[in-house]
Amino acid sequence: MTTDQQLVLSAVTSWKSGVDRASKAFSGASAENLLAEIAPGKNRVIYLWGHLTAVHDRMLPLLGIGNRLHPEFDALFISAPDRSAELPSRETIEVAWGAVNERLADGFAAFSPEDWLRKHTAVSDADFAKDPARNRFAVLLSRTGHLSYHLGQLALIVK
Amino acid sequence: MTTDQQLVLSAVTSWKSGVDRASKAFSGASAENLLAEIAPGKNRVIYLWGHLTAVHDRMLPLLGIGNRLHPEFDALFISAPDRSAELPSRETIEVAWGAVNERLADGFAAFSPEDWLRKHTAVSDADFAKDPARNRFAVLLSRTGHLSYHLGQLALIVK
Repeated sequence: MTTDQQLVLSAVTSWKSGVDRASKAFSGASAENLLAEIAPGKNRVIYLWGHLTAVHDRMLPLLGIGNRLHPEFDALFISAPDRSAELPSRETIEVAWGAVNERLADGFAAFSPEDWLRKHTAVSDADFAKDPARNRFAVLLSRTGHLSYHLGQLALIVK
Repeated sequence: MTTDQQLVLSAVTSWKSGVDRASKAFSGASAENLLAEIAPGKNRVIYLWGHLTAVHDRMLPLLGIGNRLHPEFDALFISAPDRSAELPSRETIEVAWGAVNERLADGFAAFSPEDWLRKHTAVSDADFAKDPARNRFAVLLSRTGHLSYHLGQLALIVK
């Protein structure tokens, strides 16, 4: 494996490890845990699950992998704070979470190191020419960090 | 810049961005916030600060950058849970946090992509031969995730 392939593999492995930890924590959470707030007055665990699903779903077009699978999650889990709307069932979120992450994994597997350094779709050609760091790899690292951020919160409720 | 240099730069930038966010949150925290628990019965903010300092300090020998600056932090912030010992002052932790992260940044700046793929010091030559993914770059990604994990908790108290 070349140096750049090894670097990419490490980052994708780190992403997958975060997704696996989240899958286990959410799937293993009791009904009571899912409805628990991570801290008094903060988001509930089930909201975090939907929020992470929506953010990961948005990565599909952002990275040029494909169309979104669940654009309807944005209104519930990104634009709106928790407790402002009735949330989908646990089963609905679980299926969406699995499908989105599987589609991402397939997309990642098809990227070469050079593909990872291409611009993501939310940056213009002109802006990317000025700042080539606004690439897909930076999105992967940023979203891996976002996932860890919420895993730290999740750990306050789900062991 | 070569492909592998760009990939490394992205990961180091992501690390630095996490360190900067943590520095701002901790340094900007009021005395009351520093002593607040991130959730009822959980670690206090000041403990997290010392914990992250200790974990980052351990990266110095782990990555072959140099000796530890604050090995005495382990007994307070890694082996022991919060509230089991008197903690150093805010000023002591702040200075240690700054020094450790500066030393790491200097070390990172001197690493080539190939250096990042060398084994870290906690893995034997034999084990590394079997699993070359146990390299310094994996440590960087893992500790960046660890930092984000606690940033998510910190955000529950410090805005």
